[in-house]
Amino acid sequence: MNVLNSYIVAALVVVYGCNNSPAVDHSESMQENDTIKEAGPISLVIHGGAGTIKKENMTPEKEQAYYEKLTEALNIGYAILDKGGTSVEAVIGTIQVMEESPLFNSGKGAVFTSEGVNELDASIMDGSSGMAGAVAGVKTVKSPIAAAYEVMTHSPHVMMTGSGAEAFARMQGLEMVDPEYFFTQRRYDQLMKIKEKEAAEGTTGMNNSSRNREFPDNKFGTVGAVALDQYGNIAAGTSTGGMTNKKFGRVGDSPIIGAGTFAENATCGISSTGHGEYFIRNVVAYDIAALMKYGGKTITEAAEYVIMEKLVEKGGSGGVVGLDRQGNITMTFNSEGMYRGFIYEKGKPEVFIYKN
Amino acid sequence: MNVLNSYIVAALVVVYGCNNSPAVDHSESMQENDTIKEAGPISLVIHGGAGTIKKENMTPEKEQAYYEKLTEALNIGYAILDKGGTSVEAVIGTIQVMEESPLFNSGKGAVFTSEGVNELDASIMDGSSGMAGAVAGVKTVKSPIAAAYEVMTHSPHVMMTGSGAEAFARMQGLEMVDPEYFFTQRRYDQLMKIKEKEAAEGTTGMNNSSRNREFPDNKFGTVGAVALDQYGNIAAGTSTGGMTNKKFGRVGDSPIIGAGTFAENATCGISSTGHGEYFIRNVVAYDIAALMKYGGKTITEAAEYVIMEKLVEKGGSGGVVGLDRQGNITMTFNSEGMYRGFIYEKGKPEVFIYKN
Repeated sequence: MNVLNSYIVAALVVVYGCNNSPAVDHSESMQENDTIKEAGPISLVIHGGAGTIKKENMTPEKEQAYYEKLTEALNIGYAILDKGGTSVEAVIGTIQVMEESPLFNSGKGAVFTSEGVNELDASIMDGSSGMAGAVAGVKTVKSPIAAAYEVMTHSPHVMMTGSGAEAFARMQGLEMVDPEYFFTQRRYDQLMKIKEKEAAEGTTGMNNSSRNREFPDNKFGTVGAVALDQYGNIAAGTSTGGMTNKKFGRVGDSPIIGAGTFAENATCGISSTGHGEYFIRNVVAYDIAALMKYGGKTITEAAEYVIMEKLVEKGGSGGVVGLDRQGNITMTFNSEGMYRGFIYEKGKPEVFIYKN
Repeated sequence: MNVLNSYIVAALVVVYGCNNSPAVDHSESMQENDTIKEAGPISLVIHGGAGTIKKENMTPEKEQAYYEKLTEALNIGYAILDKGGTSVEAVIGTIQVMEESPLFNSGKGAVFTSEGVNELDASIMDGSSGMAGAVAGVKTVKSPIAAAYEVMTHSPHVMMTGSGAEAFARMQGLEMVDPEYFFTQRRYDQLMKIKEKEAAEGTTGMNNSSRNREFPDNKFGTVGAVALDQYGNIAAGTSTGGMTNKKFGRVGDSPIIGAGTFAENATCGISSTGHGEYFIRNVVAYDIAALMKYGGKTITEAAEYVIMEKLVEKGGSGGVVGLDRQGNITMTFNSEGMYRGFIYEKGKPEVFIYKN
């Protein structure tokens, strides 16, 4: 089982929070030893979206709910890896926990489009084979990440969209649901609030700069996972409901290989979350891999440069989680907070929300 | 008008054909002086698709038609640049000539989906601003590249899909057409031939490896253009009908920023054509830029490595055209042929079809 473990020996460097900021109290152990961790043959890092997440706007109950759900997702993914499962299996299992939780903007709990429906996007990439799959704009597939996996493994394609993607998912035997399944009152209320504001202003929402100031989190909450399995293989996946009040079949970075998701054993696996348009234009996930491959950067340096310098310069908010084949983990974001966490060999999940 | 010309002084290196192969007779001047050309403040390079294009399968009339249409496209783009137009304007004008020609798999002349319709994808990127726009799966927009431009300039988004993208294009006042406009008998016959074969074999086309051997060009014919204007700005664009008999809302690389199209003044502009799935998984267009930026490669070296080594190793056929801010041009492909050409300062278009 562990024949390949000898290849995985390097130190696990955990870059958590933002720009080397200290960990939250929630994880005191991190503050005592915040850069080098013991080597681990398996590891998993996740996010549940980045955005203007501030402690003063959070109730203790809500905070606790996030910590618990992130912990549950990590434990499920870890159990898959620990039993000899692949990184692809762990990514799917982990993301499905978050897709099924109304806390996150993916699957159940996804934000609403302008037309009051939920249109879901997801992608997955297997760093051992370089294969990838993605779906965009699906409305009736219970688990978009599972649909992305089917595209990767049971079609010659990488990306399928709309009703075509749904027909394919159905053909593959995936669980289909009534669009109503994705409804949550909280997300619907968010849409109504934005629509009321648009109506009052007489705007169409096509110039969303003012809207983004008013509703800074209308586009955040994407979930993602990156895993390293005991065979030394990396996989990454991302799943989202996109942007509240999105129009015109808008697709963000989550289903775009290279922007929202990328995995390559030789470099790293990355899952992005944030203002998708910036992540597409800057090819964020692959840019981190390219900096490692061609620029000789570590995953930490590469993520730091792309998220904290390049994106900040351009005004693109959000973050990434990722890991390399040595188990070095990054959780880098330039926003107020990012729901995030990791787990590795020892099997103790660490979860975080805020920058400080 | 020419205040910025002094910044554009480097030699124009033209890498034409495949892997340093000699030019076709069509362009004798190229054979005499095939590496270094005089500096040029404006230049334009285009493709009309790569694939199994062999002289023995071509009639002189058809060959002539391709040469003439490529020349026309180059002349129109050059005229825009020469009059002080921007690289974005030149890319659109050039691509529209090819979109309107039934010779290419884009706009009129696009291939048919499995359902017997034409679903068009396009993207554009402005290397001066880093802005980008894309549409996927549109059926009634006469010029998909114009729709991509509208997304880039008149929406906060990068990518729109399906009927949403069409509604947006209509709202922007673009010319809408009946889907019938895109019909060509030749492309319809190609679909029928594949469908007959599928029926005879009882296959669904979801395992397309055998289909691709039988119909090696079912997915080629995408068009693209990359321009450098007198202000030193690079733009790139790509427009396609995708793959004959495509199913399930399949989207290839053409509307994916980083895969089918990328432009950045500091590095290069690239437009891809070929087997889209490979181009997505390998983030081809951005990979060339990243090799220049982080790996210190020239555009020639970078394109050569990505197309002739990385893609060939993985079995991905196709090619790219591109240029950098110094006016160095690449037209690199690993297939039998690629409809292609370039024009620069002197205003004399050079067009090619075959490898040798």
